[in-house]
Amino acid sequence: MQIELINTGTELMRGDVLNTDHQWLCRQLADAGYTVARQVAVDDGAAHIQEAAREALGRADIVITSGGLGPTSDDLTRDAIADLLGRRLIEDASVRARIDAWFAARNRPQPPATRIQAMVPEGAIVIPNTHGTAPGLRMRCGHGSIADSTVAADKWLIMLPGPPRELQPMFLEGVLPWLKAAFPPPGPTVCRILRSTGLGESVIQEMVGEPLSKLGGGGLEVGYCARPGEVDVRLTACGAAAEALVADAETVVRGQLGDHVFGVGGEVLEQVVVRLLTNRRRTVAAAESCTGGRLSSRITDVPGASDVFVGGAVTYSNDLKQRMLGVRSETLAAHGAVSEAAAREMAEGARARLGADYALATTGIAGPSGGTETKPVGTVFIAMAGPDRTLVRHEWNRFDRETFKRVTTQQALDLLRRELL
Amino acid sequence: MQIELINTGTELMRGDVLNTDHQWLCRQLADAGYTVARQVAVDDGAAHIQEAAREALGRADIVITSGGLGPTSDDLTRDAIADLLGRRLIEDASVRARIDAWFAARNRPQPPATRIQAMVPEGAIVIPNTHGTAPGLRMRCGHGSIADSTVAADKWLIMLPGPPRELQPMFLEGVLPWLKAAFPPPGPTVCRILRSTGLGESVIQEMVGEPLSKLGGGGLEVGYCARPGEVDVRLTACGAAAEALVADAETVVRGQLGDHVFGVGGEVLEQVVVRLLTNRRRTVAAAESCTGGRLSSRITDVPGASDVFVGGAVTYSNDLKQRMLGVRSETLAAHGAVSEAAAREMAEGARARLGADYALATTGIAGPSGGTETKPVGTVFIAMAGPDRTLVRHEWNRFDRETFKRVTTQQALDLLRRELL
Repeated sequence: MQIELINTGTELMRGDVLNTDHQWLCRQLADAGYTVARQVAVDDGAAHIQEAAREALGRADIVITSGGLGPTSDDLTRDAIADLLGRRLIEDASVRARIDAWFAARNRPQPPATRIQAMVPEGAIVIPNTHGTAPGLRMRCGHGSIADSTVAADKWLIMLPGPPRELQPMFLEGVLPWLKAAFPPPGPTVCRILRSTGLGESVIQEMVGEPLSKLGGGGLEVGYCARPGEVDVRLTACGAAAEALVADAETVVRGQLGDHVFGVGGEVLEQVVVRLLTNRRRTVAAAESCTGGRLSSRITDVPGASDVFVGGAVTYSNDLKQRMLGVRSETLAAHGAVSEAAAREMAEGARARLGADYALATTGIAGPSGGTETKPVGTVFIAMAGPDRTLVRHEWNRFDRETFKRVTTQQALDLLRRELL
Repeated sequence: MQIELINTGTELMRGDVLNTDHQWLCRQLADAGYTVARQVAVDDGAAHIQEAAREALGRADIVITSGGLGPTSDDLTRDAIADLLGRRLIEDASVRARIDAWFAARNRPQPPATRIQAMVPEGAIVIPNTHGTAPGLRMRCGHGSIADSTVAADKWLIMLPGPPRELQPMFLEGVLPWLKAAFPPPGPTVCRILRSTGLGESVIQEMVGEPLSKLGGGGLEVGYCARPGEVDVRLTACGAAAEALVADAETVVRGQLGDHVFGVGGEVLEQVVVRLLTNRRRTVAAAESCTGGRLSSRITDVPGASDVFVGGAVTYSNDLKQRMLGVRSETLAAHGAVSEAAAREMAEGARARLGADYALATTGIAGPSGGTETKPVGTVFIAMAGPDRTLVRHEWNRFDRETFKRVTTQQALDLLRRELL
């Protein structure tokens, strides 16, 4: 069974926004045991949407579109698809009532254009939108009801709204249960992603590639995916022996990479750290200069972080490093704010003053400006103060500002993870 | 002239990562005056890569691929394309020397597999990689040198590595200058994006759609793009009168939306706030509870933020709200930490204690847990303390945790922006 995605939106083709719907839908489908064969994005032009839908319906059994169902003049997917499939648009009274109620419940003025969203192609099944006004639509194609002769077989076209807040609950509540019932996932496919930090992609392949190739007679698919501060090793197998094969492969990878492996699946490093702290009933504080709050923000992205995270100090100025964290003026004068000594005092000061079992500190030069001969852009000191000891790492994260923050907070979280293990 | 993109990677089709290359490339091409007609993503399978490339070369003049040029076993783009176009792979001595030098300069061990990246399809032009080891490749198709007869015309296929840190400088230095010279952008296309906050998408269309439709005899294309906490209005026109038409349209939109418009183009709200503070020689501090450092982090994402941002306090616990910010225990006892009074004292305390001209504070219930009958999940108070006054906004941001942080920090930044205007 083939599934293809079509994401519509001129903003996607002009690069104004990231296509998060693509990732999210693929993740959900993969987790449920389905494979997405292809994803296509086109702009809001009706002809482009129709061409992409015609081609996808020519190949795939199920085509899922996102975008173009809203109330504004560039929302053309519903009309374009109805036209392609030769269906009339008819106002659906229950959808119209829901739209009117949505505005009434929020005491907001209702622009008349919002009622366009109640127009439904003949024969389409409405998928309710619990977080917005545009309903989703599910249409059976084929069976002689299609104007376009290239869509001949019995296929399904599913239209979802573009905003992730609307698309996601609609897919989980109104599409996935139907899909699993109508098209049970193909045989057991087992996929495990082992997430690692601290080693490069080709070094990892050199460590695990050879031993993995000796497993299971070629039925194992191995993939590598590198991102700033982490590399995923993806292990996939199909068939009856899939679970055992992937388990053997996981043992090999963990044996080779040791505690560079920090998690499995979609787990991120901040979740692992919060879980370790929760299990050990320990707390953490953050003292940030160059990462500017990103470390605190990553930790507090984890639901339940309030049980283990007491708080943080973002101290950009030397003055605040002294007043909020107790860094000594002699230290700053002798070594500068970007130094091993300053990082150590920031972490120990945060631990004592904010009242936590552990504290992490970052001080460095994110760039693009501020570098010197002896401390170039990318220089960073990362400290971890705990009940037993204080450790300081010196790193050279010569990246753009965003990647610098990402990699530096990754290294800080990993320093604490290793201390907690 | 048609351009299409092909992004390869099983991690994209399993939803393990976001396709940031798609957005970035489209943005660069749009800014240079080009339109991307279609973007396709497929997994790392050689047959899928070849099928997508064959189809794209059948439609487009220029096809750009990303991904699959690295050293690991799932990097198949180079081989698959060489096979499709009937070209042999030959080791390029200069590329091999660069790869060896890259590892030597960083004093890292060099796995032998890295040298696979020096294999270049016959006739391909090498595009140097200044941030990694896999070179890009530019190949002229057609002219009878193609094995596959479906690729008949004179077209170009450009292969770029997947990692954004490598792809981005390579495209800017090694592809875009050539593209502009070989295929000058079509006539003047003017596109302006006006970014707004505080109004919904359909309300905005109701305000601006009618007056915009009266401009310039239909030559204006208007698009709307809603994201958490902001809506873009995109104005596009082609031809000789494009600049004047878009300028008129901008005047209409600004007239209707007033200071809901906060910026133009790719400018984000934190950049606008940092610029206003810089111009007025004012400083800001942050006091965060529910946003957990995100507000400080967004401000410090802006290069040069250190001139206007003194620092921040992330105070999750009541204890730290009192000790770091001076919130009174009577206030917390009488009103709770999530209250207008607590937000006010957090902002005023941060302003005084951290020593800034302005301070922003957030206190609320991000969820998923922690809500009560009177203060449900999503309840948030946002305060701005300045030299003249303190303002507190009460909002109901009932979203997932990530969207909550995004929308709440957006509202906080907007509160300061309006005070600075």
